[in-house]
Amino acid sequence: MSLISKTPAPPYYAVIFTSEKMADDNGYSEMSDHMMNLSEQQDGFLGIESVREELGITVSYWRDLESIKKWKMHTDHIQAQQKGRANWYKNYKVRICLVERDYGFEK
Amino acid sequence: MSLISKTPAPPYYAVIFTSEKMADDNGYSEMSDHMMNLSEQQDGFLGIESVREELGITVSYWRDLESIKKWKMHTDHIQAQQKGRANWYKNYKVRICLVERDYGFEK
Repeated sequence: MSLISKTPAPPYYAVIFTSEKMADDNGYSEMSDHMMNLSEQQDGFLGIESVREELGITVSYWRDLESIKKWKMHTDHIQAQQKGRANWYKNYKVRICLVERDYGFEK
Repeated sequence: MSLISKTPAPPYYAVIFTSEKMADDNGYSEMSDHMMNLSEQQDGFLGIESVREELGITVSYWRDLESIKKWKMHTDHIQAQQKGRANWYKNYKVRICLVERDYGFEK
């Protein structure tokens, strides 16, 4: 199975979340897995791609701005965001993007 | 120094490149480093963020569609794309996005 999300034809939305963590894990992995699973159950969710080394990049794909907003305001997600700022992240950036065009390659 | 790109205020463009590689490296790392460095020298380049595990995610940021198009058609880059399809990638996806909004956090 491919790790690349099978998104529908554009337009749709992408949220690019890039972050640098503190050295101490302190429950981060469990919360991160939980948030990945929970996001997949939200209305308007289209896919998620995530990689972490020193820098972490998680891109999630959404039907529209409304579904992004709802997920941002989800109770469990708000708790995770607060914990993230208090315990896990040195810094992060969130970019809300309209995907205008896409193309791919498969061997 | 932060690994997160210091991009200007939106709107600007993001190119999300997600890929899965073959097992064999076969010159990939050198080419990848060369392309990262070369992209930074292009007109309209705003930043790049890249992480690779099994999945690779590289997000590059650009002033406008014109600068993305020019970089796509750069001679060295075209050669790298051809080598990529022939030798390195199992599959990939490119998404061209308009960044409408961004916000961040720094400790």
